[in-house]
Amino acid sequence: MHHSVFMEEIDAFTYREAIAAGAPIIVPVGSIEQHGPHLPLNTDVLLSRAMGERVALALGGLVAAPIVYGYKSQQRSGGGNHLAGTTSLDAATLISIARTLTLEFARHGARRLVFLNGHFENYQFLYEGVEQATAELALRGQDVSAVLASYWDFVDEDTIEEIYQGSFPGWDVEHGGVLETSLMLHLHPELVHLERVMDLPPAQLPRFDVLPVRPELTPASGCLSSAAAASERAGQTLLERTSKALAESIGAEVAA
Amino acid sequence: MHHSVFMEEIDAFTYREAIAAGAPIIVPVGSIEQHGPHLPLNTDVLLSRAMGERVALALGGLVAAPIVYGYKSQQRSGGGNHLAGTTSLDAATLISIARTLTLEFARHGARRLVFLNGHFENYQFLYEGVEQATAELALRGQDVSAVLASYWDFVDEDTIEEIYQGSFPGWDVEHGGVLETSLMLHLHPELVHLERVMDLPPAQLPRFDVLPVRPELTPASGCLSSAAAASERAGQTLLERTSKALAESIGAEVAA
Amino acid sequence: MHHSVFMEEIDAFTYREAIAAGAPIIVPVGSIEQHGPHLPLNTDVLLSRAMGERVALALGGLVAAPIVYGYKSQQRSGGGNHLAGTTSLDAATLISIARTLTLEFARHGARRLVFLNGHFENYQFLYEGVEQATAELALRGQDVSAVLASYWDFVDEDTIEEIYQGSFPGWDVEHGGVLETSLMLHLHPELVHLERVMDLPPAQLPRFDVLPVRPELTPASGCLSSAAAASERAGQTLLERTSKALAESIGAEVAA
Amino acid sequence: MHHSVFMEEIDAFTYREAIAAGAPIIVPVGSIEQHGPHLPLNTDVLLSRAMGERVALALGGLVAAPIVYGYKSQQRSGGGNHLAGTTSLDAATLISIARTLTLEFARHGARRLVFLNGHFENYQFLYEGVEQATAELALRGQDVSAVLASYWDFVDEDTIEEIYQGSFPGWDVEHGGVLETSLMLHLHPELVHLERVMDLPPAQLPRFDVLPVRPELTPASGCLSSAAAASERAGQTLLERTSKALAESIGAEVAA
Amino acid sequence: MHHSVFMEEIDAFTYREAIAAGAPIIVPVGSIEQHGPHLPLNTDVLLSRAMGERVALALGGLVAAPIVYGYKSQQRSGGGNHLAGTTSLDAATLISIARTLTLEFARHGARRLVFLNGHFENYQFLYEGVEQATAELALRGQDVSAVLASYWDFVDEDTIEEIYQGSFPGWDVEHGGVLETSLMLHLHPELVHLERVMDLPPAQLPRFDVLPVRPELTPASGCLSSAAAASERAGQTLLERTSKALAESIGAEVAA
Amino acid sequence: MHHSVFMEEIDAFTYREAIAAGAPIIVPVGSIEQHGPHLPLNTDVLLSRAMGERVALALGGLVAAPIVYGYKSQQRSGGGNHLAGTTSLDAATLISIARTLTLEFARHGARRLVFLNGHFENYQFLYEGVEQATAELALRGQDVSAVLASYWDFVDEDTIEEIYQGSFPGWDVEHGGVLETSLMLHLHPELVHLERVMDLPPAQLPRFDVLPVRPELTPASGCLSSAAAASERAGQTLLERTSKALAESIGAEVAA
Repeated sequence: MHHSVFMEEIDAFTYREAIAAGAPIIVPVGSIEQHGPHLPLNTDVLLSRAMGERVALALGGLVAAPIVYGYKSQQRSGGGNHLAGTTSLDAATLISIARTLTLEFARHGARRLVFLNGHFENYQFLYEGVEQATAELALRGQDVSAVLASYWDFVDEDTIEEIYQGSFPGWDVEHGGVLETSLMLHLHPELVHLERVMDLPPAQLPRFDVLPVRPELTPASGCLSSAAAASERAGQTLLERTSKALAESIGAEVAA
Repeated sequence: MHHSVFMEEIDAFTYREAIAAGAPIIVPVGSIEQHGPHLPLNTDVLLSRAMGERVALALGGLVAAPIVYGYKSQQRSGGGNHLAGTTSLDAATLISIARTLTLEFARHGARRLVFLNGHFENYQFLYEGVEQATAELALRGQDVSAVLASYWDFVDEDTIEEIYQGSFPGWDVEHGGVLETSLMLHLHPELVHLERVMDLPPAQLPRFDVLPVRPELTPASGCLSSAAAASERAGQTLLERTSKALAESIGAEVAA
Repeated sequence: MHHSVFMEEIDAFTYREAIAAGAPIIVPVGSIEQHGPHLPLNTDVLLSRAMGERVALALGGLVAAPIVYGYKSQQRSGGGNHLAGTTSLDAATLISIARTLTLEFARHGARRLVFLNGHFENYQFLYEGVEQATAELALRGQDVSAVLASYWDFVDEDTIEEIYQGSFPGWDVEHGGVLETSLMLHLHPELVHLERVMDLPPAQLPRFDVLPVRPELTPASGCLSSAAAASERAGQTLLERTSKALAESIGAEVAA
Repeated sequence: MHHSVFMEEIDAFTYREAIAAGAPIIVPVGSIEQHGPHLPLNTDVLLSRAMGERVALALGGLVAAPIVYGYKSQQRSGGGNHLAGTTSLDAATLISIARTLTLEFARHGARRLVFLNGHFENYQFLYEGVEQATAELALRGQDVSAVLASYWDFVDEDTIEEIYQGSFPGWDVEHGGVLETSLMLHLHPELVHLERVMDLPPAQLPRFDVLPVRPELTPASGCLSSAAAASERAGQTLLERTSKALAESIGAEVAA
Repeated sequence: MHHSVFMEEIDAFTYREAIAAGAPIIVPVGSIEQHGPHLPLNTDVLLSRAMGERVALALGGLVAAPIVYGYKSQQRSGGGNHLAGTTSLDAATLISIARTLTLEFARHGARRLVFLNGHFENYQFLYEGVEQATAELALRGQDVSAVLASYWDFVDEDTIEEIYQGSFPGWDVEHGGVLETSLMLHLHPELVHLERVMDLPPAQLPRFDVLPVRPELTPASGCLSSAAAASERAGQTLLERTSKALAESIGAEVAA
Repeated sequence: MHHSVFMEEIDAFTYREAIAAGAPIIVPVGSIEQHGPHLPLNTDVLLSRAMGERVALALGGLVAAPIVYGYKSQQRSGGGNHLAGTTSLDAATLISIARTLTLEFARHGARRLVFLNGHFENYQFLYEGVEQATAELALRGQDVSAVLASYWDFVDEDTIEEIYQGSFPGWDVEHGGVLETSLMLHLHPELVHLERVMDLPPAQLPRFDVLPVRPELTPASGCLSSAAAASERAGQTLLERTSKALAESIGAEVAA
């Protein structure tokens, strides 16, 4: 039977067949976070899910239901968690979610997992949760392994040059900027309001964090760089190349 | 500006306007749980979200991004957490999520929250998390209150009689049965495979739990009662009346 | 040697002999909770302990020292945790107690446990603690199982009819009402002050919870239904039939 | 109205009157722990409760329902937690119980609490829980204080000399020995089996702990010193003088 | 009185005077981690402490006792936590330490803190702990703020060029390489064994993590890049310029 | 190769050789705590580390990097945690540190550990952490054991008599007094300011704790007994005899 790659949309019997056939599970990890006046709050969920869909298709895997809420937005990568709309979990909760899902998918019989991250701040907490779970499974003698990846780490230099034309501001300030906006224009144009983009210069943030956050350091848009140069076509390019690079890069791990 | 009632689909600026205008926030709480061979794994997410949408429209509210993963399926209400496909969080994690979201929405300025539950086993853990958060907010002098409701508690006796015609098996075994299947037929017919329904007699379960679960007590379908009598029309009736009763019942609380 | 069924009253050497002979352990779980002006604060402890004694006698078991303090009283089942006298633990603590006691009795060599609940609100938290412990024991290859039961689930329809004569208000509002008061009149008449019963109509509570609790929804007595119809004789009937039904129902599990 | 000093035995209305009148609350803290072949498993609960009763009578206080299960028995003070019958909580759980009860009694309006310890190993964990709670209450501006005391610290030198006649082995090995057995003979003679006392020399334990415990270091009786010299009369003397010293010593704190 | 800038070496009375005078507190955060055959296990502690000393001297601050043990070494930045010698805490513990120290120094009266990180993997967990503490302090109305910085973020481009001469491998693989070895040669030459340096090519690590770690991906030295080009002089340059940049950069925050 | 006994000062390759050769690991546990106007804040770290060094030399062991921050100072043994300078962890954090380090050293291959305590208040929390870890290791079938010792328990009666000449105040009030000051005069004379000793009578503290602490019960010096009689020579005697007694006493355990 042909079925959706999204675990959410299939029934348990179909799911069990896919797992029994060795399908790896891709877990998209997003956030509910302000992305300026032009992008919806669940941008990170949608992008990690779309990348996950393509990786799953390439690798014969399933896309798990997403981890919707992520770790607190930090000022230097997401504007800061003081902003309304941004709705975040603390470290312990996100760690528990990552740990528990790893153990649950292992209980189902899955042997290869991929946590596909779409929100900069999540990474270390996913790592901790997955590390705890895989260590526990190894003690039990179970051969389960997990890949952790942030999708932007698979955008190659040529693509950056092609899209940003020398003005790439760095991944940490790519929040609500060209990358995310282009991808959204390609995937969910109805949710993007380009006319609301605030075309501000990139945020000037110090090389350190200060807590409590000093709100005046975040631009009025909440974005750390401008999305004015975004385009649907750049989005298509980014989606295709990045998901292809991802699938190639982690393919050997997942097939092992 | 007219906008979606789904928080996920709107941008942060629009969200802030809605909150400033006093919109209550409805948080759908579901699960990723086997629902037999005929319903998708995220049935509880879809149903709580659909009920939430109608309540939000009636009360001028917003629907938050859902809590996707829920508490462990228990044998007497969901078949048991030993079944593959069912993917659950433990108590501490779900409590933390409920507590944190309450505090985050309060930080945004929301004063009235509704946790709308679509998975039997979640309730007490949501209660604990929301209790902790509202107690903390009260200590700070903030007027924030939250309603907790499971949608099936708002199906009235007449509707039960009309739909089940005297064969209502009780809410605890309404798992993958007539209620959920009818609602899904109405809302997401493309995700329902009626031809795969296993028409088994209702599960015979003891008046106690035993742990570890004895798997032989769960019917082969994973459902606790048969969905054979489900219909799109019953689904429409259930959705309309239940969401209306919900909105009326909690309306006064939310407006206070 | 003949000995008490109460673990508390026997010495460790006698206890070890009973465990070695295969005695199941019954753990009564109560609460310290207001039960109106006519019942003592530890009513739930006394009733679960008395039920446990009879079950232990029927099944050759031991009654463990009780879990005295229980989960927070909820307004729709116990009047609410805002009331003075009600002294409760939070979820994490009760979960830990249930988990730890399961592991400790397993360490002693006990293979069958029964958590016998006498306070509505405890159930899901006991479940979580026992689930964690039995899962851990199963991973170690230990054959230990636990039954979880609330005693009122074993009161049969005929007895309800006989005692309530058609006016049964439902278990959730049976707080400080006819059931508990009758049982106490039979077991501990010196602790019951019938002349202080406040004969109020049953509480009218919504189908949802609201937090923080709205105190005005709880009757002035703190009870959710009136105990005016309680009698020592009804208590004797309830105790005998319910403990017999309990012992019969869980007997096979415990002997397995 | 004259009433019991035991919180467990009174109703909520009576309890509230006592608290309103300024009654301090004495919380007995025990354990379920092997005490050799001659004493019951709940010896520490019974003794802390009996001391608490006398202190409450002297100071116009109430005795709370006991903390029944205590911290793990340690080899140098209780024989070790490897022994069957000994049923213990871990540190986090006992800390939470102490913290929560302090907050709950403060919520009721109590201003002076006494944690009266009857199990050597509990002390530091009670301290932590009470410290957390009182610090939190102080931040809220509430004047609540708590005394922590182990009852044997109030046995004076003369009484030790009188009872042990020069053979006092030290409090740490007073486990199941003369002190506890004498007190039990006075308070609960029906639960003491003097004929089962194993009259062994005091345990020879190193000045350090080793984990896992080396079981051979604990005497076969499980007691760390012999109870052969115990007497009802010594028990009466100990109870009277110790509870009097306790009440006098903490009286000023509790009245402040 | 002239005194050491190291909190550890001064007495409490002197410490109180410094705090009363407004001294910021610099908390060095290190790790016990393998750094190849040529550097000691506490390299990260020594380097963060040395940087802290210079910052404290520049800003009139005190250096707190270090956080000695850090978060688990990750393969892509520290070789991996499977290596013997590397001795790490999990996330929850490090978060608690950062949170508690922030609250403790605030209790002392300190208003400006700096967590100066010397181990790549620590950062996000320090952030979480400090975020929790500063949020709590802000709720209490206390003006306490904290800076979080990793010292290598203050090495400027010119210095990198000067020292690495075009062969800079990136901060993530600067583990046991030129930077750390040069700094140690300058600060603690007696602890460096240059003759034991294994001059291997930089580690080739994927753009993702895989757990459990695949040990064969870490070079035999445990270092991710070669230290063969290290020199005392480069260490002096790095120490002077980096600590100066740090002090200048955070000076305004700390003085606020 | 000859190497330092301090784990901190050696490289990972040398460390692995020592572990492979069966070296026990000694973990010094201290605190950052006020010790009056004449001793530095890290006195407990320095003393436990110095004792550990001598034990390691005697037993062929290694001294781990110290646990620097310890449990909250208690008024009856350390003056109280309300005093500025005293910088403490709570119970959960210290328990986690002890548990994690035990597991980490076991992962390295170490089979015998010694936690050598230099701060009275730490003991029970170290015990809990080590108990958890060794129980977990035993379940995995690993032969790892740990000794827990406080160094002052190995000062013999003759030495006490010799040094205190009949005026020994008891270990609990030996805080900043003759013992610690003498040891510091011998080991780190440059950090002792004898001229600042406040020669006050021993603290008069009740036989119970009260929380929140009543600050007036702690002497103005913060010390619980006077250090006026301290001498370098007494320090030398104490160090030599105590470390010798320690090594002899735990030698058999560690060699097993």
